[in-house]
Amino acid sequence: MNEHMFFTALDMLGTFAFAISGAVAARQKRLDLFGVLSIAYIVACGGGIMRDVAIGAIPPAGLSDWRYLAVAVLASLLTIACYPLVKRMTNPVQLFDALGLGFFAVFGAHKSLVYGHNIEVAVMLGVTAAVGGGVLRDVLLNRTPLILRKEIYASAALVAAVIQVLGDTFAWPQQWVPWVGIVICFALRYLSLSYRWNLPRFSDGPG
Amino acid sequence: MNEHMFFTALDMLGTFAFAISGAVAARQKRLDLFGVLSIAYIVACGGGIMRDVAIGAIPPAGLSDWRYLAVAVLASLLTIACYPLVKRMTNPVQLFDALGLGFFAVFGAHKSLVYGHNIEVAVMLGVTAAVGGGVLRDVLLNRTPLILRKEIYASAALVAAVIQVLGDTFAWPQQWVPWVGIVICFALRYLSLSYRWNLPRFSDGPG
Amino acid sequence: MNEHMFFTALDMLGTFAFAISGAVAARQKRLDLFGVLSIAYIVACGGGIMRDVAIGAIPPAGLSDWRYLAVAVLASLLTIACYPLVKRMTNPVQLFDALGLGFFAVFGAHKSLVYGHNIEVAVMLGVTAAVGGGVLRDVLLNRTPLILRKEIYASAALVAAVIQVLGDTFAWPQQWVPWVGIVICFALRYLSLSYRWNLPRFSDGPG
Repeated sequence: MNEHMFFTALDMLGTFAFAISGAVAARQKRLDLFGVLSIAYIVACGGGIMRDVAIGAIPPAGLSDWRYLAVAVLASLLTIACYPLVKRMTNPVQLFDALGLGFFAVFGAHKSLVYGHNIEVAVMLGVTAAVGGGVLRDVLLNRTPLILRKEIYASAALVAAVIQVLGDTFAWPQQWVPWVGIVICFALRYLSLSYRWNLPRFSDGPG
Repeated sequence: MNEHMFFTALDMLGTFAFAISGAVAARQKRLDLFGVLSIAYIVACGGGIMRDVAIGAIPPAGLSDWRYLAVAVLASLLTIACYPLVKRMTNPVQLFDALGLGFFAVFGAHKSLVYGHNIEVAVMLGVTAAVGGGVLRDVLLNRTPLILRKEIYASAALVAAVIQVLGDTFAWPQQWVPWVGIVICFALRYLSLSYRWNLPRFSDGPG
Repeated sequence: MNEHMFFTALDMLGTFAFAISGAVAARQKRLDLFGVLSIAYIVACGGGIMRDVAIGAIPPAGLSDWRYLAVAVLASLLTIACYPLVKRMTNPVQLFDALGLGFFAVFGAHKSLVYGHNIEVAVMLGVTAAVGGGVLRDVLLNRTPLILRKEIYASAALVAAVIQVLGDTFAWPQQWVPWVGIVICFALRYLSLSYRWNLPRFSDGPG
């Protein structure tokens, strides 16, 4: 597997995880079949489309490459078929969102560098690609945006994007650098949910 | 009338219909004159600007071609002048939204093909152009997004976009293909509203 | 100071003012440190990124030029450090938003003209750059969007953008034209807040 295929595979895994989080959230809002498919696709591809527009990758891969749509549809149908199973999970939207977060942060940062942009663009768009789809999901479905929650969220994506940019800059071996970022991102996010970790907050008076 | 002029005319009709839906929604929220004009313009041109950014049509026509702004302003002023009439209609926002939906789905799909993109891009951006302005309207005005409603909505736009893409691909006569898409889209949307048609939904337990 | 540096300085001042408005709004919602920084950056750079995407300035300056990020971070840290002071102000979010409004309207209009676009694009994107970041702030933080308020808001940005476009078109001296727009915009906005000025509204019956 060459490097391009490897990163495309990471992107597909992120797409799959985010599509599940979108399908579950849409299903919880009792949308119809087309609504579930639409939200799953928007969550899965929205962040990547923002990234591609900003780096000048026109048309965005999420629109022009049929595999993204296929993965999003497949993930939605699986979610619907296995919904009784999904429903028993603790907060499946946040779980699959946390999975997709790392994949998209790493891939977004890498793709921005491949397009010749500087490391700031790569880090910012890694985070944007990672959190963009989830923000669209929460805004469209009138959910409280995850970025407003108290736990570590976008900062976990930031860590993954920075690790990937370091890896690309110093030519660290690409077979393990992305996985380090993905695992650390997921661990940070998931442990912060489980143990209610927080970044420093401010608590003097009624704000 | 040549083909380019014909499609531009379709786009202007869609702009007009969406601007009315935006002006009515803004008027219902008691915005001032400038607020009504702004929301009408955003609804009328927002979806098309998303489409143009994604296909690389820079600057977007909604920003650079004065006729879109003029049509949106005209539609707003007419809405304000005839508001007692509009108010007596059953759900004017959804009525004019349903009209604009088909025009924009057809034109969005066609324009994407003209810019040399593949049929998936054309279908996706036809739907995006059709529903984008309405989503912005609902998010900005704190309305429940139409895509969350139970009736057929984005799927009607999808049908129109697919018909137009088929027409362009197989060189069906352009004087009637767009109208077939537009009429079917409007009929699907409007009948689903009137008779409460639904796509399959899921109703087991509290989701 | 040459003209390019002068306009960059205006843009940085707008970035600084908007970042403070974002940091205060995020702080009021009790977000953590990273949340405050994120919202401050999005408010400060969101409108400019929309403008740059629409004029084809890829990658957007807000992403590729580290100074915007640095200014947003600095403004956030100052806001946090001086929060007891900020809290005593009357509506600091609207105050700093009003300050940024004029800077971004002027700079957005000017930059669009520099990129070779027509005066309509320049005016529309001046307004978009000016109100875009604030709209994102209000949507993400579930605040009532300022554009829904009754006072003069986007119309003040429109005045500033039109003055700048007139200045660029007729080659009026650039050392004072932008300041006229900025001061009029701030005065319109701030006086309308203080004295509850309104544009004509509609008050017949329940809408």
